[in-house]
Amino acid sequence: MGKLLIVGTVAFDEIETPFGKTDKILGGAATYIGLAASQFDVDSAIISIVGDDLPQEYLNLLTDRGIDISALEIVKGGKTFFWKGKYHNDLNSRDTLATELNTLEDFNPVVPEDYNDADVVMLGNLHPIVQMGVIKQMKKRPKLIILDTMNFWMDNALSDLMAVIKHIDVLTINDEEARQLTGEYSLVKAAQKIFTMGPKYVVIKKGEHGALLFNEDQVFFAPALPLEEVFDPTGAGDTFAGGFSGYLAASDDNSFENMKKAIIHGSNLASFSVEKFGTERMISLDRKEIRERLHQFKKLTQFDIELQ
Amino acid sequence: MGKLLIVGTVAFDEIETPFGKTDKILGGAATYIGLAASQFDVDSAIISIVGDDLPQEYLNLLTDRGIDISALEIVKGGKTFFWKGKYHNDLNSRDTLATELNTLEDFNPVVPEDYNDADVVMLGNLHPIVQMGVIKQMKKRPKLIILDTMNFWMDNALSDLMAVIKHIDVLTINDEEARQLTGEYSLVKAAQKIFTMGPKYVVIKKGEHGALLFNEDQVFFAPALPLEEVFDPTGAGDTFAGGFSGYLAASDDNSFENMKKAIIHGSNLASFSVEKFGTERMISLDRKEIRERLHQFKKLTQFDIELQ
Repeated sequence: MGKLLIVGTVAFDEIETPFGKTDKILGGAATYIGLAASQFDVDSAIISIVGDDLPQEYLNLLTDRGIDISALEIVKGGKTFFWKGKYHNDLNSRDTLATELNTLEDFNPVVPEDYNDADVVMLGNLHPIVQMGVIKQMKKRPKLIILDTMNFWMDNALSDLMAVIKHIDVLTINDEEARQLTGEYSLVKAAQKIFTMGPKYVVIKKGEHGALLFNEDQVFFAPALPLEEVFDPTGAGDTFAGGFSGYLAASDDNSFENMKKAIIHGSNLASFSVEKFGTERMISLDRKEIRERLHQFKKLTQFDIELQ
Repeated sequence: MGKLLIVGTVAFDEIETPFGKTDKILGGAATYIGLAASQFDVDSAIISIVGDDLPQEYLNLLTDRGIDISALEIVKGGKTFFWKGKYHNDLNSRDTLATELNTLEDFNPVVPEDYNDADVVMLGNLHPIVQMGVIKQMKKRPKLIILDTMNFWMDNALSDLMAVIKHIDVLTINDEEARQLTGEYSLVKAAQKIFTMGPKYVVIKKGEHGALLFNEDQVFFAPALPLEEVFDPTGAGDTFAGGFSGYLAASDDNSFENMKKAIIHGSNLASFSVEKFGTERMISLDRKEIRERLHQFKKLTQFDIELQ
């Protein structure tokens, strides 16, 4: 049982899709990462910041799953980070209608003593300076540091981003961001360029088109499960990251072969996450369903071809 | 050794990509299908029409590979179908700069006697009435009829298209076309709707994102091989169709399990086709290279996960 340290937002989301809309519901990268990772045998903790407007029941959802939230700072009189977005009809693109940083503006993450020797650190999408601050507090070098980021930081804090990328093992970004970061259209070339920036592994997320894992001259591809209904894509990428990091922390094996399995576990959990609004599906999810869908993943991609 | 009947264009293409441009070179759906299928042990014939402006050396390229072109009509004084296109920087989209139908305008395909008992009929993208004309001339029902089409016919000849689709076994279209044809965004639902139109199998081509094969409640996914350089995507879809149909004709097994292999063979050949302009790469391709890249496909997608 490995120790997983998760850094990221715990937030209010208000979501509109072609199928309906929500009030303010529980969201945030750390939330999705934590819920997904809790499907594996890990000790996990979330570092984040919220206001005291976040209902206790939301925090209970996390602690009920064994997630340590002692480093989740609750600011008295503060307001929780809020995101409001509307998805277009194809669910592949969305407009951000509101972003209120609130307590996140003064976020100084403090790594709890129990977790400064974590095996795996999963740095969810946040300002790269905040991500760096967490790495610096680790008492010993984690076996694996995974960082997720987005184009916003490439546009607005590129040098900070490059500084933290130097210290990580795995970078997870989407295909457009990989192209933006490297100036290479070919994802093969983009991954090779990212290797020169520090990471040994690159995971390129392609949404409904799956995910690619690169390491040196090796590449692995995991499809997204073709679904009849995609209800709400919010949190799919973070759920993927949570499954990926949670599986790796639980199995204590960071070989390429094991990372392939971690990619499949991440894709598998993400396929559930999009079936309902927000975290709803992840909260009701049990391990039997997860196992059954892993079978589907295997059937989806495995073939037997004669190779002389 | 099965018999494969190929119907489609043999054409002049003039192509511009970010990497350069060509003069008028050999192109056309039937050309790419034939070249790809010739990598398998099949007897194949092409039904098409050209003018006598098409150089003999282009025809020799086909006959050298054992492709029967006795039903390739050469119109004296006629001009060969011509397409001119320019790819955008990302190679994922292109502008058609010129389309001259020429001899194709009066194309009345005649199935040669030797091939009216073909095992597999591969109907390349053409007017659905032409595709139907070929099916009607078959002396016995082929074991497998595969049809490729595009949005142009959905826009301009939908009822003719629906009429021919009723008589086929496998429909190959791209993701956007599947959505247009069915009004369903989910590719799972789109495939299910296409089943009600006639085909038992649906292949959805997603270009650089791979291909999906649907049959009843089964689905298989083959990725496209991530390449360092994509030089010219022209003919990739037809090369895929040629590998798919050629493998099926050669193996005489139309089960879902064997179709999975056919999809991989098609994807494998398409990964070569895009490496050079036009048909250049397909002409120089040998079976050793093909085998080696099949190994890469296997490594790209195969994983070993504990399933209880």
